[in-house]
Amino acid sequence: MNFEKSHALFRRAARVIPGGIYGHTTPAVTVPGAFPYYAVDGNGCRYRDADGNEFIDFMGGYGPLVLGYCHPEVEAAADAARHHGACFNHPTPVMVELAEYLVERIDFADWAVFAKNGSDLTTWAVMVAREVTGRPKILKVAGAYHGADAWCTPGLHGLIPEDRAHIHDFPWNDVSALEALFTRHRGRVAGLVLTPFHHPAYADSQLPSSEFVAAANRLCREHGALLILDDVRCGFRLSVDGSHSVYGYEPDLAVYCKAIANGHPISACVGRAGHQAAASRVFLTGSYWNDPAPMAAALATLKIIARDDVPARLARLGQKFVDGFLALGVKHGLPLVASGPPAMPYVRVADDPSFLRTQRLCAAAVAQGVFLHPHHNWFIGAAHTEAEIDEALRRLDHALRPLRV
Amino acid sequence: MNFEKSHALFRRAARVIPGGIYGHTTPAVTVPGAFPYYAVDGNGCRYRDADGNEFIDFMGGYGPLVLGYCHPEVEAAADAARHHGACFNHPTPVMVELAEYLVERIDFADWAVFAKNGSDLTTWAVMVAREVTGRPKILKVAGAYHGADAWCTPGLHGLIPEDRAHIHDFPWNDVSALEALFTRHRGRVAGLVLTPFHHPAYADSQLPSSEFVAAANRLCREHGALLILDDVRCGFRLSVDGSHSVYGYEPDLAVYCKAIANGHPISACVGRAGHQAAASRVFLTGSYWNDPAPMAAALATLKIIARDDVPARLARLGQKFVDGFLALGVKHGLPLVASGPPAMPYVRVADDPSFLRTQRLCAAAVAQGVFLHPHHNWFIGAAHTEAEIDEALRRLDHALRPLRV
Repeated sequence: MNFEKSHALFRRAARVIPGGIYGHTTPAVTVPGAFPYYAVDGNGCRYRDADGNEFIDFMGGYGPLVLGYCHPEVEAAADAARHHGACFNHPTPVMVELAEYLVERIDFADWAVFAKNGSDLTTWAVMVAREVTGRPKILKVAGAYHGADAWCTPGLHGLIPEDRAHIHDFPWNDVSALEALFTRHRGRVAGLVLTPFHHPAYADSQLPSSEFVAAANRLCREHGALLILDDVRCGFRLSVDGSHSVYGYEPDLAVYCKAIANGHPISACVGRAGHQAAASRVFLTGSYWNDPAPMAAALATLKIIARDDVPARLARLGQKFVDGFLALGVKHGLPLVASGPPAMPYVRVADDPSFLRTQRLCAAAVAQGVFLHPHHNWFIGAAHTEAEIDEALRRLDHALRPLRV
Repeated sequence: MNFEKSHALFRRAARVIPGGIYGHTTPAVTVPGAFPYYAVDGNGCRYRDADGNEFIDFMGGYGPLVLGYCHPEVEAAADAARHHGACFNHPTPVMVELAEYLVERIDFADWAVFAKNGSDLTTWAVMVAREVTGRPKILKVAGAYHGADAWCTPGLHGLIPEDRAHIHDFPWNDVSALEALFTRHRGRVAGLVLTPFHHPAYADSQLPSSEFVAAANRLCREHGALLILDDVRCGFRLSVDGSHSVYGYEPDLAVYCKAIANGHPISACVGRAGHQAAASRVFLTGSYWNDPAPMAAALATLKIIARDDVPARLARLGQKFVDGFLALGVKHGLPLVASGPPAMPYVRVADDPSFLRTQRLCAAAVAQGVFLHPHHNWFIGAAHTEAEIDEALRRLDHALRPLRV
């Protein structure tokens, strides 16, 4: 597989963009020469890179493309809105419809606000928790990703100590560590931020234990802290009603983003009626906040997800993919470990603490036209079909064959 | 003028959205009943509200619509990109082209990064300044708007003292106050954040004195601090090369947003080569960051702004509008005060500390189909024509007539 045009673009980019490519932990940077650097077009579950290589895609833009590239119904809804104008001085009727839809759809939600990106609203939710409680402390899981803002960025640079003076980490699923933090900071905890399951980079995914979920609910209730569910990555992939319903969380606030508009830029935070007045006091705005096109795209996407029971489809196709992948590992004598819910699976080589063998595995998959990320969970999309899962597995069979030796 | 449908939508919204309408200081909330609450479509420099009332628009979505609603060239560029797919796993070639264009166009710029909203990058620029200098302090102008993030939000709620422990305000154009802050925090100042001119809400705009610009440049240089120009609101409206060139600022970093893509969601930060390595270390990402459509829209918009010398057009039409408006004040015996550059003017009633008379003036303009904001600067757009400025002035003549009595 040839990446000449990708490399030429990267050389140009490195001159005028810090790092050339920034952001998402792109395997192009961690495994130089083996992954594409630039995309040019996509359709359904496939996309092409700058050199014309085509991939069956298991990342979906790190989540947004839940229905696949260029979904006709979503694009028609967005285009219809866009052709009436963008970014007015006022909101548009579709904003009210979208808020009403989310309040109807999500059992605990009484209200909704919208922004552009997950971080916008995980950070705003932290501010709302502080406003509701008058307290500063935020508890979160070590290694959990909640965005690129200073209180939570995985980056190590540009920070000052004050950014995290009141942010306290504990290990996922560790009930006693969580209890100890609530006890140590009694009367000072504004909120607990959790993802529905733990999906760190460079590690297996971990589902929540029922004890952990029960403790999170109980401790927030007992201590008067808000439970903030960061459902940015999972929301509407695991359930048509928000992921809290899958695992039994009782959130006060939940943030959605990636899957809600199939790639159109919008995020949402929903909450309970008791916090609506406080939420209205925490300033929230942005230059493109009122734009109706992403809201129309979100309404279309969410209705398709519910109409077609997309989460059930993702779980079924994901299970087929993971089962087939693990069977190939057995066939080729390559021990593999799968983790995460089937709709958002992650498969790595066993006994691979450096991830070097998993990087080679994913590089071999890419060489066969299957885009897999070596150290980030994957995303099944509704645009995948049984036939394409079969094709991906046939290609992986080829990819694993040379790896055996 | 009837706002029944706007009011019905607002009653629905108030149930499911905190505050019903949040964000931009909408005059619908501050002057109830006299302004539209919801927009439905726009074309050129005109838009219609939910009740079918049509307005000649002097806000342009608070800035983004520099070329007017539904600009055919910009929409064609965005559509062409969008129809090839959105939010890939990788950047696309247009990202490299856009960075190269900005580096070519802006004299001091050696690199560029992109995000969705102004706040994303004013906040990131602050982190870059801290990374470059290893210092915590940020100096900014009292009352200046740099976004909705905790270090700078005009909101008063959801904050903790640590958010602003190292943020220090001084009055616009006050050289000795600025010098005193640099002296008091010697060796601790990472950056000075300025807008090109001062455009606070609920106040006249103020241009910078040449002494102030010279002092800002000199003090940053002498103290090894970064000069961060927040050109979000003014950028590419006052000059085709960035607003620093108009007033003589020598920025290290500059942030652009509103005018760069005619309403498509993108912001940009540019900087000097000496800071590129530090910038590459400050983590920056988001779910929709790689989306090519807003980048294609930005490239199209910026090329049109340069090709048509849009800033010259905005200045000429703005001067005509302000001159005509002030003349109407004289004619009707209503003393008016104009401030700001003509491309982004603001006109208010003289001797009106409560802004109540200016609110009535703008409400009367709205009743005649001219949308003016009573306490925020206005925006002339390239979609305005001489004829439409004349029409707006004729309508304002009607609006001012009953106000005289």
